[in-house]
Amino acid sequence: MRMRKKKNLDVRFAACADVMAFEPREKRGRWRALFGNDHPLHVEIGCGKGRFAIGMAEQYPEINFIAVEREEGALIMAAERCQQHPLPNLRFVSFDAAELREVFAPGEVDRIYLNFSDPWPPNRQRKRRLTWRAYLEVYDELLKQQGDLCFKTDNQRFFEWTLAEVCQYGWLLQNISLDLHRSDFEGNVMTEYEEKFSSEGARIYRLEARRRLPEFLRK
Amino acid sequence: MRMRKKKNLDVRFAACADVMAFEPREKRGRWRALFGNDHPLHVEIGCGKGRFAIGMAEQYPEINFIAVEREEGALIMAAERCQQHPLPNLRFVSFDAAELREVFAPGEVDRIYLNFSDPWPPNRQRKRRLTWRAYLEVYDELLKQQGDLCFKTDNQRFFEWTLAEVCQYGWLLQNISLDLHRSDFEGNVMTEYEEKFSSEGARIYRLEARRRLPEFLRK
Ligand SMILES: C[S@@+](CC[C@H](N)C(=O)[O-])C[C@H]1O[C@@H](n2cnc3c(N)ncnc32)[C@H](O)[C@@H]1O
Ligand SMILES: C[S@@+](CC[C@H](N)C(=O)[O-])C[C@H]1O[C@@H](n2cnc3c(N)ncnc32)[C@H](O)[C@@H]1O
Repeated sequence: MRMRKKKNLDVRFAACADVMAFEPREKRGRWRALFGNDHPLHVEIGCGKGRFAIGMAEQYPEINFIAVEREEGALIMAAERCQQHPLPNLRFVSFDAAELREVFAPGEVDRIYLNFSDPWPPNRQRKRRLTWRAYLEVYDELLKQQGDLCFKTDNQRFFEWTLAEVCQYGWLLQNISLDLHRSDFEGNVMTEYEEKFSSEGARIYRLEARRRLPEFLRK
Repeated sequence: MRMRKKKNLDVRFAACADVMAFEPREKRGRWRALFGNDHPLHVEIGCGKGRFAIGMAEQYPEINFIAVEREEGALIMAAERCQQHPLPNLRFVSFDAAELREVFAPGEVDRIYLNFSDPWPPNRQRKRRLTWRAYLEVYDELLKQQGDLCFKTDNQRFFEWTLAEVCQYGWLLQNISLDLHRSDFEGNVMTEYEEKFSSEGARIYRLEARRRLPEFLRK
């Protein structure tokens, strides 16, 4: 039964070859070559069914997007949707964020997006949150010097915790929105979760976290 | 007319001698002597009509409180209210936060409270905000090594800006509440503004900002 499902998924992924990047470890350090240009590389982690990544890739043709998701059941829906109108600057990839270092080389990424990541509410589960300090360390390594992290969520506690975590890690907080949909933030692209929760009246929180420049580069 | 008003205020302040601290510059470095004990010293800046300071001093008899206010018209109301039931651990003081360094010695203060400080919305006015970096520098100097700053406001933009400012200054953000009255924060004492705005349905935001310990003291 499980085998059948997996095999079925393999066939479906193979049909989405235009929008997928298979064997991501082999592209480590050479993602720009895949796109055939030198545009900035933005990576979304936990892209779900792909609404955000597709919307962003349409809106910013001069940026290359990699959308990462570990649940193949979600990822295939993203890929099949995109395969109907492939975008040259977007690829979907299947792996777990725990393996990011195996897929991207240090300094290869310009921006990381985390949208409505699982909040893992109990405090003892905090190490699973994608804004936990050990993940920030990984992002720190993969991001360019001026790179940053953009994080959106509807979960107030998770957002409060992330503000403190990012600050403690030593990054700068920028463009904080405590009510994104009633802010002057322009060009927001909604995710599936964002559409659902905001239509139910939830506030959406957003922050950007920027790596601190080394002392000698600050003005 | 103005003279009469001022003279009238002087008389009223003189009648509140039990709860006032006059000539604050002369007490610099010796505030503990005024209270006759070694209890921690907490300073509220912009105490308005005194509700918070009085409530806190009642709730924490083992802490000494100094409530600072530059508007004498507000301060006299705080002082007269308190004078009816003087508290041994609370004094009101009239001066402007710009003169904090003249009133407290380095390391003399354990905690600073800012409650519903004026938000000064236009960006060009940011230097007037009591969480502007130049004020953080002053607090940094006056606070003990493990000292901290507690800030409450109903103003979303001001809070967003303060989060970024505190983080950029290099302090740690702690115990952030993006909806204080629906959080598990215990023992909150409301200010006049807090009572008014929250009764109208506004969210109250709160943060604590802690000085970073020098590297060698961190575990
Ligand atoms: C709550 S959903 C949000 C989906 C989408 N970003 C949205 O906003 O609609 C979180 C997604 O992150 C994925 N995810 C969680 N942890 C992950 C990890 N360690 N690596 C890759 N994806 C992960 C989950 O499989 C899930 O699809
Ligand atoms: C908006 S009111 C809030 C009063 C009170 N904290 C409350 O929450 O109800 C701000 C108060 O801060 C005082 N204030 C503003 N700037 C100040 C400064 N630089 N030094 C001392 N007090 C100041 C004002 O006079 C005013 O009473």
